[in-house]
Amino acid sequence: MRILLVGAGGVGSAVVAIAARRTFFETVVVADYDPARAARAVAGRDDRFVAAQLDAGSAEAVAALCRAHRITHVLNAVDPRFVMPIFDGAYAAGADYLDMAMSLSRPHPARPYQETGVKLGDEQFAAADRWVDAGRLALCGIGVEPGLSDVFARYAADELFTEIDEIGVRDGANLTVDGYDFAPSFSIWTTIEECLNPPVVWEDGRGWFTTEPFSEPEVFHFPEGIGPVECVNVEHEEVLLIPRWVPAKRVTFKYGLGDEFIEVLKTLHKLGLDATAPVAVKGVEVSPRDVVAACLPDPATLGDRMRGKTCAGTWVRGTGVDGRPREVYLYHVVDNEWSMREYGHQAVVWQTAVNPVVALELLAAGAWSGVGVLGPEALPPKPFLDLLTGYGSPWGMEER
Amino acid sequence: MRILLVGAGGVGSAVVAIAARRTFFETVVVADYDPARAARAVAGRDDRFVAAQLDAGSAEAVAALCRAHRITHVLNAVDPRFVMPIFDGAYAAGADYLDMAMSLSRPHPARPYQETGVKLGDEQFAAADRWVDAGRLALCGIGVEPGLSDVFARYAADELFTEIDEIGVRDGANLTVDGYDFAPSFSIWTTIEECLNPPVVWEDGRGWFTTEPFSEPEVFHFPEGIGPVECVNVEHEEVLLIPRWVPAKRVTFKYGLGDEFIEVLKTLHKLGLDATAPVAVKGVEVSPRDVVAACLPDPATLGDRMRGKTCAGTWVRGTGVDGRPREVYLYHVVDNEWSMREYGHQAVVWQTAVNPVVALELLAAGAWSGVGVLGPEALPPKPFLDLLTGYGSPWGMEER
Repeated sequence: MRILLVGAGGVGSAVVAIAARRTFFETVVVADYDPARAARAVAGRDDRFVAAQLDAGSAEAVAALCRAHRITHVLNAVDPRFVMPIFDGAYAAGADYLDMAMSLSRPHPARPYQETGVKLGDEQFAAADRWVDAGRLALCGIGVEPGLSDVFARYAADELFTEIDEIGVRDGANLTVDGYDFAPSFSIWTTIEECLNPPVVWEDGRGWFTTEPFSEPEVFHFPEGIGPVECVNVEHEEVLLIPRWVPAKRVTFKYGLGDEFIEVLKTLHKLGLDATAPVAVKGVEVSPRDVVAACLPDPATLGDRMRGKTCAGTWVRGTGVDGRPREVYLYHVVDNEWSMREYGHQAVVWQTAVNPVVALELLAAGAWSGVGVLGPEALPPKPFLDLLTGYGSPWGMEER
Repeated sequence: MRILLVGAGGVGSAVVAIAARRTFFETVVVADYDPARAARAVAGRDDRFVAAQLDAGSAEAVAALCRAHRITHVLNAVDPRFVMPIFDGAYAAGADYLDMAMSLSRPHPARPYQETGVKLGDEQFAAADRWVDAGRLALCGIGVEPGLSDVFARYAADELFTEIDEIGVRDGANLTVDGYDFAPSFSIWTTIEECLNPPVVWEDGRGWFTTEPFSEPEVFHFPEGIGPVECVNVEHEEVLLIPRWVPAKRVTFKYGLGDEFIEVLKTLHKLGLDATAPVAVKGVEVSPRDVVAACLPDPATLGDRMRGKTCAGTWVRGTGVDGRPREVYLYHVVDNEWSMREYGHQAVVWQTAVNPVVALELLAAGAWSGVGVLGPEALPPKPFLDLLTGYGSPWGMEER
């Protein structure tokens, strides 16, 4: 297996740190638009890791780099604006493809908070036949959420339930950053983007539909000491992926933003500070959202000051294999103190990065295989969950 | 009486519109840094009004303009950063002086939320002896708040109470702006400044002290249909003025910001978006507070879209003249629809502007007189309240 890793940011660097301990691949070419960043990500690693420069916005450049290094698998670890050129470039070069976020949505032009417009992943699924015909695999959404959360959904359907009423992905954390009143542990730019897009929900018989931002608030109790966190509907890939392979009456994604973060996002929106279009301010032009980001610390630099745990998981309610009502939460928790000590990467990026490495190892071993554009729930869940535990990061389950 | 009006912004322009209907003065020189703005403020008015250019940051320029026009009274209607040069320039030219906000405070360097540092008005009171010796009057804080609110406090002490436990200025509104989710009816820059400064409180035996921003929240019921509004302690001149002339056990100022506005200000502070120091944003430098202001509509342009009423007033609790406990709210309400129709100025600026015009008329008539640096509560309240009613804008009182 010869891997092209596109993006040497937070998640890409953590992928390198995790993969460096494994033996299933021959090479990883770490490519970034900034060659210095790619070089930093491979510095000190063994000679399977090589750095390269790449414009991820060019499918031709992606394909050329694949051909130059005889790449078999492309792992996309850059932001979702670059999904399509990387996806198309991998296809053109005859490589398999993996990503952790899917092609972007566009709201319904007339009824954005009732109906879907272009959905997350639509552009990739439109190319599914081409991938099948070529005998190539695009494994989409194989981070932690989407990714491990989808594996949990398939595991619940295969092993725990005969009928599922609802699958609800629930993500929450109790991370704090020393020395800051307010310091998001992930990009505020991206958080604004995903939280202010119309959230999507799936229901059997109705299909996909959208709601107002921050709809259906609920307090979800997270395990391992994290405790109760206010969660709200957010647009996320799982709602688009799970119903394609896992039978359920309803699928949702709720993000445990907490009331404070929700209030911040609502206030930014109310004041127009979420806008990306530049405004004139005393003779200069700036994007308000960029100003917000500039006022906050860079989350990639906060690992040493962070404390606490982050939890990703899938809550499932339905009829158990014994015919009785059942409700479980399948989850994966990472303690920042552990991920910093073991890998030097903060909990949120480490938790995202471990899953595509596990998936690549399963593909290398043949435990996972397939063609076309697939989500993680299209593949058998048990080998994945077992290997994740083998990486030293076990998952858990709570009966509720 | 020959008046120099410094500042042709919202309040200054409303002063011109109100004064134009009165006959007590000989001339008003309307001066602004921007000569076009001064010209617009006097356009269409009778020939008592003349426009001039002035740098309000220069005491020498203020004094020179006073001498050139044989000015007897200077009315300061610019923002409080310019109090001292205008105050000093009026003194140098032998003119009396009026303002609507006093010289600025600086927080206590070590204990900002417990102790006062340099207080509002301290720099002006430090010059009081000079003004007395020269036989000249500086009448400070004679807008609506401070201003009419101080007159109400003196009126309560003179006419309604034998002993006062607390004087609490309370300001609230139900103004909305059509077409905007969130559009402050006054400068967001100034609101951030006054609301994030440490609020000041006065208590008999303890003197002045400060608290955390937004302290002592209470829901105050405003009259004439405005209803309940959440009010919090804010730094304001009345707390510094009233105890100098009116005996009371406690003096506070609470601003009816409402929970929504309080949450916005707290969020801006939490994210560092209240900062005035520039930050680097993709190659340019901008002040975050300026970006916030640029994202919101200019309140001076919103009069036609505003609806609702604004209320300024003074709540007093103590022992009535009959020896029994008494609690009253003395107030003044302006309906935006009325002020726009009658004067073409929105309610908040009109309500501020009417009071210094009334005061000038009382000084011209000799009903008010004095020397030194005085607050409105140093002068007899009844003539003021009667003349305000004579201007078509009556005040009210509620027993509570």
